[in-house]
Amino acid sequence: MSAVYRKSLFNIPLGMIYLDGNSLGPPLKEIESISENVIVKEWGGKLIKGWNESNWMEQPLSVGNKIANIIGGDKGSIVAGDTLSIKTYQALAAAIHLKPKRNIILTDIDNFPSDIYIAEGLVDSFNSNFELKKVKKNDIISSLNEQVNTVLLTHVNYRTGAMFDMENITNKVHENGSTIIWDLAHSAGAVPLDLKAINCEFAVGCTYKFLNGGPGSPAFIYVRPDLIKKCYPILRGWLGHKAPFDFNNTFEKSTSIEMMRVGTPSVIQSSILEKSLDVFRDLDFHELREESIKLSDLFINMVERTCSDLHLESPLNSSERGSQVSFSHPFSYAIMQALIDRNIVGDFRAPNIIRFGITPLYVSEEDIIQTVKVLEEILSNRLWDNPTYLNRKKVT
Amino acid sequence: MSAVYRKSLFNIPLGMIYLDGNSLGPPLKEIESISENVIVKEWGGKLIKGWNESNWMEQPLSVGNKIANIIGGDKGSIVAGDTLSIKTYQALAAAIHLKPKRNIILTDIDNFPSDIYIAEGLVDSFNSNFELKKVKKNDIISSLNEQVNTVLLTHVNYRTGAMFDMENITNKVHENGSTIIWDLAHSAGAVPLDLKAINCEFAVGCTYKFLNGGPGSPAFIYVRPDLIKKCYPILRGWLGHKAPFDFNNTFEKSTSIEMMRVGTPSVIQSSILEKSLDVFRDLDFHELREESIKLSDLFINMVERTCSDLHLESPLNSSERGSQVSFSHPFSYAIMQALIDRNIVGDFRAPNIIRFGITPLYVSEEDIIQTVKVLEEILSNRLWDNPTYLNRKKVT
Repeated sequence: MSAVYRKSLFNIPLGMIYLDGNSLGPPLKEIESISENVIVKEWGGKLIKGWNESNWMEQPLSVGNKIANIIGGDKGSIVAGDTLSIKTYQALAAAIHLKPKRNIILTDIDNFPSDIYIAEGLVDSFNSNFELKKVKKNDIISSLNEQVNTVLLTHVNYRTGAMFDMENITNKVHENGSTIIWDLAHSAGAVPLDLKAINCEFAVGCTYKFLNGGPGSPAFIYVRPDLIKKCYPILRGWLGHKAPFDFNNTFEKSTSIEMMRVGTPSVIQSSILEKSLDVFRDLDFHELREESIKLSDLFINMVERTCSDLHLESPLNSSERGSQVSFSHPFSYAIMQALIDRNIVGDFRAPNIIRFGITPLYVSEEDIIQTVKVLEEILSNRLWDNPTYLNRKKVT
Repeated sequence: MSAVYRKSLFNIPLGMIYLDGNSLGPPLKEIESISENVIVKEWGGKLIKGWNESNWMEQPLSVGNKIANIIGGDKGSIVAGDTLSIKTYQALAAAIHLKPKRNIILTDIDNFPSDIYIAEGLVDSFNSNFELKKVKKNDIISSLNEQVNTVLLTHVNYRTGAMFDMENITNKVHENGSTIIWDLAHSAGAVPLDLKAINCEFAVGCTYKFLNGGPGSPAFIYVRPDLIKKCYPILRGWLGHKAPFDFNNTFEKSTSIEMMRVGTPSVIQSSILEKSLDVFRDLDFHELREESIKLSDLFINMVERTCSDLHLESPLNSSERGSQVSFSHPFSYAIMQALIDRNIVGDFRAPNIIRFGITPLYVSEEDIIQTVKVLEEILSNRLWDNPTYLNRKKVT
């Protein structure tokens, strides 16, 4: 087993090969007692006093600091809360206000839709001073010009697992005098990240994928420390005020990353998230990455040899790939259903992609070999060609 | 005991008189098993399949429907999610777009600060087309004119417990051709509400106060059914799309209340909230209100007789008061600390107010009598005049 493998710490159904940690990470076994603690001892036992005595009010910062350790941010540069869409809205509003004379927001046309929609909503609310330009990922750099205010990109594509060269793009964006926001939804907890070294202005991410925070756990936002004081707050919730408990009727923004807080934090989910992050405490992300590449390459090579009907949608070159492998097939939905019924869980993304999250914390070489074996069986015997799989209700 | 009293259902520390349910409601005893179910059986046991099999994705609507039963909304008119500040932002943006030629948002200068800040942020982002006007509560009606687009009010004031006449104000706002948004933070679960009869356009609220949803439980938004299709979505998260799982790169808003969804719902907190709402299923809100008035009047009368140093900050007339009683005193902070140390828990709000939430679900006449007795002891013997209380760190 690899040095990063620690499946015994997780609560994953016996016999299941779980290749969907890029969508929803599994709980650590310890989470059960954490939730009991926060619900019974803190909420029930302390009631309103929990806000002070159990540090509920500071938790968005303490969780932020733990995330900072994972993605290479300074202490006090990240706060947790809300959802990724909300955090993206805040980052984008703050970013475009830094350079008001430039009016273009540039993004990848294949970016996660919510990032695009959120940007459209923001642009629309500014009565056309700003414009959202969606281009193909290979056209990002060539689309940079003096009107480009901010570039909003997701580091690893949710559908294909294709990974941008963060350093190169950030440098090019900066050379153009523009600002960059990185969405780390599919990279935080999955690949080595060093925001300080990259020097990006903003980053946002969610915590229920590779960070295993639980369904709907809080998102996060990173602001480069030198920019925090200059940031424009669009969502002026009371907890972004510099003295929220003075209850003044005029907003004065906090001078710390807390200006990106909005309303009352989801304490129970935050407590679960905070514990979930501990699994990364002693983890070497370069070892994790090495193992992820090893498993992904093995997966791709075996599929190529034995499942020729599947078309690789992820980059073949591991340096251009996150921790996910995707294939397409005209009947990929039914193929995934057949796999799931054999206790191997990945997921489907419209129109025809099956995705496999490669999470070496709880996925082994043996799991990959077994997965391809079952895939081969499903494909060679057309086991997917069955109304049970073809007609199963599609939801998420 | 009154017909609505059901303290045995709640997890409240033995011997504690809890008069702070207007800030954070206590957990039902059942919540412990609910959280175990959602964390161990659903998240751990089903992992990604929880989204479909455990109805996580529909939960914001099913929770919304339960809230609708409590506040008199139609089925499908409410969705849960995010925080109250976020929901207020969405409601306000949608409201002002209904009547684009009117440019004033009118609010109470003593409204909860986050409502004011959120409105300021929105107005600011529209580059001065809109203006926020803050007036004293008695000047709301006289400030209505043909430029007033939307009136944003909190039904029950967080500091004093003063309650607006919802019906009268709504009618006056409508006669003026304006739109009203009611913030129900301090009234949902506390007083009888009938949004359909009131005919307000929008309402928002939080669920961790009188609805006992837990620290940071999701907020909610109500949109009058005839307006849903016309609503302008400012926060275009993917779950507000009419077909989020098609992952299109252009936003098309949902035609239902789901257009007010933003990102991934906080499933664990939502599950806890959903169970918490069951305590209201067989509750007669008129009985609850009658008992709340009886307890509040008793409290006020006894304080008047025995604690003359305390000045009543709530309206004396019960019809103008929510389910909260507030007093002021130059040393109110220390007085509240002394009370808390005697296991009677209310809270303090700057500059000099002590608040007592009157929650007949778990507060009895005996509790009120005991509270005033202890208050009298603290005041007549100046027990508050003690460095322990005077200097205790203020946070929430």
